Amino acid sequence: MGNIKRVAVLGSTGSIGRQTLEVISALPRYFSLIGLAAGKNTDLLAKQIKKFQPRFVYYQDKKARLAKAEYEFLSLEEIAGHPEVDIVVIATSGKWGLKPALAAVRAGKRIALANKESLVMAGEVITKEAKRKKAQIIPVDSEHSALWQCLEGEMSKPARIILTASGGPFLRYLPAQLDKVTPEQALKHPSWRMGSKVTIDSATLMNKGLEVIEAHWLFDMPYDNIKVLVHPQSIIHSMVEFSDGSVKAQLGYPDMRLPIQYALSYPERLTNPQLPRLDWDTIKELNFEPPNPDTFPCLKLAIEAGKKGGTYPAVLCGADEVAVQLFLSRQIKFTDIARLVAQALEEHQAITHPTLEEILAADDWGREMVSAHFKEHDK
Amino acid sequence: MGNIKRVAVLGSTGSIGRQTLEVISALPRYFSLIGLAAGKNTDLLAKQIKKFQPRFVYYQDKKARLAKAEYEFLSLEEIAGHPEVDIVVIATSGKWGLKPALAAVRAGKRIALANKESLVMAGEVITKEAKRKKAQIIPVDSEHSALWQCLEGEMSKPARIILTASGGPFLRYLPAQLDKVTPEQALKHPSWRMGSKVTIDSATLMNKGLEVIEAHWLFDMPYDNIKVLVHPQSIIHSMVEFSDGSVKAQLGYPDMRLPIQYALSYPERLTNPQLPRLDWDTIKELNFEPPNPDTFPCLKLAIEAGKKGGTYPAVLCGADEVAVQLFLSRQIKFTDIARLVAQALEEHQAITHPTLEEILAADDWGREMVSAHFKEHDK
Repeated sequence: MGNIKRVAVLGSTGSIGRQTLEVISALPRYFSLIGLAAGKNTDLLAKQIKKFQPRFVYYQDKKARLAKAEYEFLSLEEIAGHPEVDIVVIATSGKWGLKPALAAVRAGKRIALANKESLVMAGEVITKEAKRKKAQIIPVDSEHSALWQCLEGEMSKPARIILTASGGPFLRYLPAQLDKVTPEQALKHPSWRMGSKVTIDSATLMNKGLEVIEAHWLFDMPYDNIKVLVHPQSIIHSMVEFSDGSVKAQLGYPDMRLPIQYALSYPERLTNPQLPRLDWDTIKELNFEPPNPDTFPCLKLAIEAGKKGGTYPAVLCGADEVAVQLFLSRQIKFTDIARLVAQALEEHQAITHPTLEEILAADDWGREMVSAHFKEHDK
Repeated sequence: MGNIKRVAVLGSTGSIGRQTLEVISALPRYFSLIGLAAGKNTDLLAKQIKKFQPRFVYYQDKKARLAKAEYEFLSLEEIAGHPEVDIVVIATSGKWGLKPALAAVRAGKRIALANKESLVMAGEVITKEAKRKKAQIIPVDSEHSALWQCLEGEMSKPARIILTASGGPFLRYLPAQLDKVTPEQALKHPSWRMGSKVTIDSATLMNKGLEVIEAHWLFDMPYDNIKVLVHPQSIIHSMVEFSDGSVKAQLGYPDMRLPIQYALSYPERLTNPQLPRLDWDTIKELNFEPPNPDTFPCLKLAIEAGKKGGTYPAVLCGADEVAVQLFLSRQIKFTDIARLVAQALEEHQAITHPTLEEILAADDWGREMVSAHFKEHDK
């Protein structure tokens, strides 16, 4: 690679953010961290500022000036679009990723995109703008990174995408069993270590549904050509089928540092001894099965919302976020998540080709609907 | 693709040759067959000439002028280097591929290479010449085609190659059981339909050893970075591990038409409804295990011959070809194949950096040694 790339990490205290800093620390000849932004975890952010001495910093709690380092306090959008930033890692959670993603796209940056909601909620707005400004959106999700890697160098559009799914901790549960599962059980993901929201989304398969929508926008792929395949080992991260029937897959142990690093180093690959190597002396089998739509209705809900488009995916995201929080705080059952999200989607009056403001309003509306329905039910 | 590509198929009556004609017939907008060459199967060749009306023809038995079509009778090398030929498919068997391969390389052609021996025996000569003349050698072997596909668009050299092997029909046999197997059993390959020589080579794993040597030359890969992995379903055709630990695999049902077509259409991919699509509703598992070097000594023999280099691989090929014929004609046991090949290799006085003539002489020497040892033994 040529010059050292200057990286800003938005959402630096979350799971992806922390792993991004690990990758950058391991490759100081290639990357320098010049921007850090976090939400409320100011303790960890202060430590990160001390270690990396970034030029630009943002945090939600503006009361306390953090650390003793010299830095400029900027908004998320200002960091994302700053002329001195080469790569913006968007690892903020939920709707907080949208505005910085759009700012980075408008500034023609390379975006290492870990925030699913940007594309799920605002895929049309963001991909259109990225095309116009020649901004490069490189996915950090392991599945989409796999697809990106498989498509690299290929001249023709893929015929089909096969998104693999671990199936989550409740893979072979029956619907009746799911009624009784606890947050502790749902948080025990069999293969990936991730934040709690995405771990619950993985247990409901909502996460896979969001990834279908993301893949639709990233790879301009019709929904009917995106197949979800359960693969419990999470070794094959996804596959692409080409027009001649050839299929390419990307494999690796479940470790987010690889797709993070690839999004930073693309189109090159960098040797990083910290990243694990597949050991074929221990891998004896890889298994596959279709997902069960009756047990995991969130998958279908998400794909339907994606197909309908407009503000439906934003309602889906907002509603799901509140429902997951209610489940995590033991106020609803696991199976209520899908029920509440479905209810919000049913009652939604969608706007087609929404603006970013309309998208964010729909997300809010979805949140409010779930809260309202929950309270009614609670009475 | 631009203009129609003019293809010559050397070895048109063999398994790969016939499948190449199927692919060309299915894609008349992209390919036109202008050269056909075969050995002794003149009946089939006459039919092929009638159907495809090629401009250039070669066959071994010069007595009978075949078919009534108008064509020019040329040597294999003349066809391979003819200015009107865009792509030369080298599907001739054994050492008969070497001279035409070199002629095609010297003429700077695209070579779709199905003949293993060209690279196994003369890898150094051919790859050096290909570099000098900017000839493109695109592998037709499913494993090497898989590697080629996985490497497409990648900027950095792979760290490791994982060549998959079906394991053949005797995968979990003990050495003692192998003493008694018949040609009929050995010819029943569990996943691939191929010619009889390569099918026996697959049963002894000699074929995989030859493929290791081929991969060494095609991808400039040290032998110690090429790993052989048994994968009985033959769905994953091979894998590449990159410097960042990411692994890419190419998958498909065992069907040679895909790698043949890819070698013709590369870098594009063409829709061909005759090629099968993986059906993920029926694929439930993919299995892996290490090869057993005690049961299948040919694998190790081949890799050692490759590592020693010089004329060793030519002796390996010549010796193996005669040994396989002796087994097929029930004159030796299955386990004698490895024994006779090992004996020839042990007695060989190798030449380093041999010329093509020296390579062909070593192949002959290997053949003679096996015949001589067999006769001694037979007395």
